[in-house]
Amino acid sequence: MSVEKRIKELGIKLPEAPGYKGNYIGAKWAGNIAFSCGQGPFETTKRGMVGKDLTIEEAYKGARETAMNCLAQLKAQLGSLDKVKQVLQVVGFVNSAEGFMDQPKVLNGFTDLLIEIWGDYAGRPARAALPVHHPGWICVEAWLVVELHPE
Amino acid sequence: MSVEKRIKELGIKLPEAPGYKGNYIGAKWAGNIAFSCGQGPFETTKRGMVGKDLTIEEAYKGARETAMNCLAQLKAQLGSLDKVKQVLQVVGFVNSAEGFMDQPKVLNGFTDLLIEIWGDYAGRPARAALPVHHPGWICVEAWLVVELHPE
Amino acid sequence: MSVEKRIKELGIKLPEAPGYKGNYIGAKWAGNIAFSCGQGPFETTKRGMVGKDLTIEEAYKGARETAMNCLAQLKAQLGSLDKVKQVLQVVGFVNSAEGFMDQPKVLNGFTDLLIEIWGDYAGRPARAALPVHHPGWICVEAWLVVELHPE
Repeated sequence: MSVEKRIKELGIKLPEAPGYKGNYIGAKWAGNIAFSCGQGPFETTKRGMVGKDLTIEEAYKGARETAMNCLAQLKAQLGSLDKVKQVLQVVGFVNSAEGFMDQPKVLNGFTDLLIEIWGDYAGRPARAALPVHHPGWICVEAWLVVELHPE
Repeated sequence: MSVEKRIKELGIKLPEAPGYKGNYIGAKWAGNIAFSCGQGPFETTKRGMVGKDLTIEEAYKGARETAMNCLAQLKAQLGSLDKVKQVLQVVGFVNSAEGFMDQPKVLNGFTDLLIEIWGDYAGRPARAALPVHHPGWICVEAWLVVELHPE
Repeated sequence: MSVEKRIKELGIKLPEAPGYKGNYIGAKWAGNIAFSCGQGPFETTKRGMVGKDLTIEEAYKGARETAMNCLAQLKAQLGSLDKVKQVLQVVGFVNSAEGFMDQPKVLNGFTDLLIEIWGDYAGRPARAALPVHHPGWICVEAWLVVELHPE
């Protein structure tokens, strides 16, 4: 089944690719490897530090939205997510209150969406989860590296 | 026009590749994808946190110098920047005072240089901008991933 | 000499690939480029911030263990490290006490192991060393990008 069809069947509505906050582009690729830009959650998601301003559940939702925004950026540049064969790498930074150690649980919100769409192997990336501590900043930022089907 | 010629025409003088601070190399590649090591600005640039020790304008200049150092590292390993077809990814960390949220404006100093050299599409990367908060550290650190022309 | 044989000759005993802390996989690849997931040191290594809770020497050891875990994850997915031709990129985050500036010395623990195994050029990556400041967190986290031999 095509990826675009699968996304529709799952009832997932990708947003418009968010506007850029600087001089970059939403995605770039060479051969069969594509990089998304770093994205955060929708603007409606509460900003702040997980473990103080947000719960894990709220930040999980923010991480899911972050994934949707990364996919929206890839789609806007590639034309269609049907070109994406599998996901390779996700690097995510979780805005963490002092003592908060559940960054991996937050980033599951990002990778669970990918696994729903591409399935358990193709959708499952090598992932790194890092803490940042920056009051008032978005709760999650992440980027995505994917493999494209050969042209 | 060749990249090296374009750099000369723009009046950009790349520095010598900075010495290594540990056991790594300035750039490595496989097939047509090359990674620069992480770099910071020139040693003459003030260290410190943007929004407290440095203005956005000073840090923008530091980010531009960071890009020059990344390109110098790529050039030292590749032999010539004419081998670089386009830029793919830039990940940058901005040393941020509490409340400083303009990391993207700082990193424009890095990507504006790339766009001047390679032009608006080829020079524009997928970019991620992250805050760090480490008093006394360099104001910016970033790495660069590029596509090489086929040999 | 094969990489697996070299590892044995050096007396290096790779651990079992650590269990996952979330929904990801230990390594993913496309063509000849493979990404490890982010890893930290063994659980026996002291957690905390270098320059306060740990010395550089202790954190160097933690970084070496982090490399062993990244290699264990690659091996578990690839079947054998003989498939790895060279290392390309290492990005490492060092949990840093205020004023600690020797992140590169800590990450030498990671890259020295790679150089022992693959030799001075193939084992030497483009590296970025970043500080994080998160009391109680692991002392190092890093990921590894490698080139695979053509199949």
